[in-house]
Amino acid sequence: MKFAPAAVIAFAAGICANAFAQHKPEAVIHYRQSAMTLIGWNFGPMSAMVKGKHEWDAKDFALRAERLAALAPQIEEGFAKGSDKGAETDAKPEIWKNPEDFQAKVNDLVNESKALSDVARSGDEAKMKEQFKKLAGACGSCHDKYKAD
Amino acid sequence: MKFAPAAVIAFAAGICANAFAQHKPEAVIHYRQSAMTLIGWNFGPMSAMVKGKHEWDAKDFALRAERLAALAPQIEEGFAKGSDKGAETDAKPEIWKNPEDFQAKVNDLVNESKALSDVARSGDEAKMKEQFKKLAGACGSCHDKYKAD
Repeated sequence: MKFAPAAVIAFAAGICANAFAQHKPEAVIHYRQSAMTLIGWNFGPMSAMVKGKHEWDAKDFALRAERLAALAPQIEEGFAKGSDKGAETDAKPEIWKNPEDFQAKVNDLVNESKALSDVARSGDEAKMKEQFKKLAGACGSCHDKYKAD
Repeated sequence: MKFAPAAVIAFAAGICANAFAQHKPEAVIHYRQSAMTLIGWNFGPMSAMVKGKHEWDAKDFALRAERLAALAPQIEEGFAKGSDKGAETDAKPEIWKNPEDFQAKVNDLVNESKALSDVARSGDEAKMKEQFKKLAGACGSCHDKYKAD
């Protein structure tokens, strides 16, 4: 692992279990879907900028990159044990059958979003676009395996 | 205003309008409800700790305080002009009739959550609890006026 933010370590140490102890599975599912909504809300305009569908705005891109770096570690509590069912969800049950592989993919998301936030502070458009694609790859790699179509 | 984070300034300068240009009112409403879900998810365990209903955990409290400080500025885009209707919402239409007053209340939330994140890094339990109550006051002050029961 390239990078282990405090949030990830704290999570691994049991925040997940604590948080879940206070929440029913449907609340956990609602939480993770909400976190994904916020991630998508910020990811969308960045993707449009990278694809040239929206005017490049380095300041807005950096703001959203910072948000993604803060949001990424927050999805972990949304996949607490026992939240494989309880409400309509696109999360495949394989997530809870392969916790180590899933955790590795979450770590990738956390690392790539942190790297994007860091590089966005430089204002280097080419590097920001390059790192955004790596982040998008981390999203896609996990969705391909663990998210229902 | 005690404190004006870059996010707030950027928002006031037009991110709100930009973001909304890409989203239908129902998407904006879904976004703001998702942001509130994340805020509530983190606020809940902190409130339980402050009320003595959950064992005090300064590290977990500080982690959640940091999250709230990152989330608070993100609610602003969720109240974009035109998102007073379009889906079921507890947000009262008065929000869009009193934009300056509403903005002041959002600023309070941003400031108090930032102050909480700062004080949480000190690990001083009494100060953390005191500042948490100020943050809760900022939430309540806005909900009382602008959130349907």
